[in-house]
Amino acid sequence: MTTISPAVSFARENRARFLDELKALLRIPSVSTLPEHKGDIERAAKWVADDLRRSGMEHVEVIPTAGHPLVYADWLHAPGRPTVLCYGHYDVQPADPLEEWTTPPFEPVERDGSLYARGSTDDKGQMFMHLKALESLLKTGGGKLPVNARVIIEGEEEVSGEGIEAFVKNHPDRLACDVVVVSDTEMFAPGLPSLTVGLRGLCYTEIEARGPATDLHSGSYGGASPNPFFALCQIISRLKDDDGRVLIPGFYDKVKAPTQAELKAWESLPFDEPRYLKNEVGSTALTGEPGYSVLYRTWARPTLEVHGMPGGFTGAGAKTVIPARASAKVSMRLVPDQEPQAIFKLFSDHVMSLCPKGIRLSIKQLSVGDAVVVNTDNRFVKVAAAAMADVYKRETVTIRTGGSIPIVASFQKHLKAPTLLMGFGLPDCAAHGPNEKFLIENFYGGIESLVRLFERLGA
Amino acid sequence: MTTISPAVSFARENRARFLDELKALLRIPSVSTLPEHKGDIERAAKWVADDLRRSGMEHVEVIPTAGHPLVYADWLHAPGRPTVLCYGHYDVQPADPLEEWTTPPFEPVERDGSLYARGSTDDKGQMFMHLKALESLLKTGGGKLPVNARVIIEGEEEVSGEGIEAFVKNHPDRLACDVVVVSDTEMFAPGLPSLTVGLRGLCYTEIEARGPATDLHSGSYGGASPNPFFALCQIISRLKDDDGRVLIPGFYDKVKAPTQAELKAWESLPFDEPRYLKNEVGSTALTGEPGYSVLYRTWARPTLEVHGMPGGFTGAGAKTVIPARASAKVSMRLVPDQEPQAIFKLFSDHVMSLCPKGIRLSIKQLSVGDAVVVNTDNRFVKVAAAAMADVYKRETVTIRTGGSIPIVASFQKHLKAPTLLMGFGLPDCAAHGPNEKFLIENFYGGIESLVRLFERLGA
Repeated sequence: MTTISPAVSFARENRARFLDELKALLRIPSVSTLPEHKGDIERAAKWVADDLRRSGMEHVEVIPTAGHPLVYADWLHAPGRPTVLCYGHYDVQPADPLEEWTTPPFEPVERDGSLYARGSTDDKGQMFMHLKALESLLKTGGGKLPVNARVIIEGEEEVSGEGIEAFVKNHPDRLACDVVVVSDTEMFAPGLPSLTVGLRGLCYTEIEARGPATDLHSGSYGGASPNPFFALCQIISRLKDDDGRVLIPGFYDKVKAPTQAELKAWESLPFDEPRYLKNEVGSTALTGEPGYSVLYRTWARPTLEVHGMPGGFTGAGAKTVIPARASAKVSMRLVPDQEPQAIFKLFSDHVMSLCPKGIRLSIKQLSVGDAVVVNTDNRFVKVAAAAMADVYKRETVTIRTGGSIPIVASFQKHLKAPTLLMGFGLPDCAAHGPNEKFLIENFYGGIESLVRLFERLGA
Repeated sequence: MTTISPAVSFARENRARFLDELKALLRIPSVSTLPEHKGDIERAAKWVADDLRRSGMEHVEVIPTAGHPLVYADWLHAPGRPTVLCYGHYDVQPADPLEEWTTPPFEPVERDGSLYARGSTDDKGQMFMHLKALESLLKTGGGKLPVNARVIIEGEEEVSGEGIEAFVKNHPDRLACDVVVVSDTEMFAPGLPSLTVGLRGLCYTEIEARGPATDLHSGSYGGASPNPFFALCQIISRLKDDDGRVLIPGFYDKVKAPTQAELKAWESLPFDEPRYLKNEVGSTALTGEPGYSVLYRTWARPTLEVHGMPGGFTGAGAKTVIPARASAKVSMRLVPDQEPQAIFKLFSDHVMSLCPKGIRLSIKQLSVGDAVVVNTDNRFVKVAAAAMADVYKRETVTIRTGGSIPIVASFQKHLKAPTLLMGFGLPDCAAHGPNEKFLIENFYGGIESLVRLFERLGA
């Protein structure tokens, strides 16, 4: 199967146009968490729908939800062949801190073989590979695909994902399929085709602490008024010990360890810890639970992180205030079989038990998702591995990732379909950070891998 | 001395105009810590100089410094009489959080007998009382004052105070005086004339923690990358215990307790702790070291407070980032004989000793000031107490405050002059907070008290 099909040829001949189209999509700042980008979100959804329509997909529809819209399309004229559901998201993370971007986040720029822009890897670039693979097959197949295909692209992956959750739950028939294909993960190393079979879950919270009724002068009241920031520091410091072990009672009770076979496979991956420390993390040392490798810690152990602490005075210089309120954004990454709602309850109970004198706390749950370990024991996984191996001329490895794609658990639950996580990002792609980039070669390699996957599935 | 002098009459007759003029000054958003208000600072300095010129003061001058300008004026034609130095500041604290102001901070509004605006009490309103007292005396005295007077008004009191520090140190001759009068404190209770004889010192710092080289995805890296926010929470939680006792080694070594007489006097002040908790602080409980009264804790015990923790993601919703850097604004209020630079060193050493693995710390000192206990053993204090008692028809009490006015220590050191802290703010004036206000009656009472002070000093 290393022959060049017409669809693969088409994809190769149209690389420049595909890249230009991707740039146009990247220019839309569709940041889902910021209300001021609501119009951009709608613009991005329409853009994706228009592209699907032009490629020859059918029943293209922008489906409203309580939040940001879904984009749906299908082509279902291959009886007897499997049905593939392509999933991706057109929303992106906020771009701040803006000042750390070398070029503006929503002005895609090619540099050193990569395309730099917010969403280039996560997930506009990778989602767009699916659209271009389908287009290549449709344009060279007389408007036909070798398989039945549905496409569902959401706009809330970086926030709640509530719209698609409800849609999958309430309309599983509209997404009925044999297999789901998702490109929102990474290759373990450049040139090493990788199927991701494990995702961590997520429980993202915000703790608000209130002290005095109004902001107070810290000179006049320091020593008598409770201080919400100090309270949050006390609480947070008691959620995790110096070794990175989470101190919430019951937190580890349901944690299921990877199999010995999986752990052994990880050991043979080309992982270089000093290089990872220097080139990826860039700190003076790594942290985390002793006795676990970096891959184990980030793929199969739960963690707790603080993302920001809004409130009080954050301008330049000195303001002597005891703020009336302060907040902390705290999330936990979860692993099988930790259940996010159960963890949220353990977390909330523990935080409340740590509430210092004079402080009132409220805790919000901003986002949740189940951890998933994808079942590798089916023919689709083998076909996907082979399709990627065709392109990259190397055996495909199976890995996990520490990130979360909550909808994968819902696909498993409501569609009873396995998910293929065929990712083409790279460890240094800076998803969620400044200077996010996508190796342009992987954009092309991803399109070709997907073309070959669909061809193999339809053979 | 309860007769009505021409100057007192003049002050009474011109109340409406004085208040209008104050409003004009309050409309200038002269926030000293924010670089974008540099022009407003200059405008405010010029406004003050123009007012002094119109009132009949001489040698009016806007004196440039390395930071914000000083305003100087004098009238020195009363040989044999004492020389008074009036000090105040025309700069103000930032107004945020803006959304908590009932009316805009730089649009002064009269409501329920108070004037609401940033700076109404701290310190434009109180500083302006001095200008209007001098004007009342000059206009009714044929252009003469009963004493020699100098005026020095600074624009950096809410930040470093460096400009005036350098000026006092380098040009003590230009401020030579027998006594300094400052109105930047409070009355203990409405209608209770109060001389403040103790101020806490200040050591204001900013700790920056750096972890990964760039913002990282908390899914991919959570469990291996150090987190600067978590590090700051760990550090800060170890700077003060649950009872409010500072844990920095050596921190309390130089603390000098108030005299038994002073403590006894505080006990007879009309302080109602439940009322203070409910109406002033408004939290569910007070905090602070056990075994010390509220007045003792806030007036004569040092504290440590957190004012804000900039960095990371502070927008609405969820962003799953391990930020490359995070900061914490931490200040300590000091008491005699804690020396701010020595305390900064103890603080820095301790913070550095708490630095977690993988984190790099840097610590800046943003502002310092010595604690002061003003000597009450001289005739000026007695005259000031009598002048205030004339106006309020009650015996003047002596109190301390938990706030800091660093320049008072420098006046003592370089001018060898005692400082009279004649304050007319009130405990609920919300200096530094939203809805700062100044009781209009106290604005008038303050002007009259100062007129009577100058008359008594010149008698």
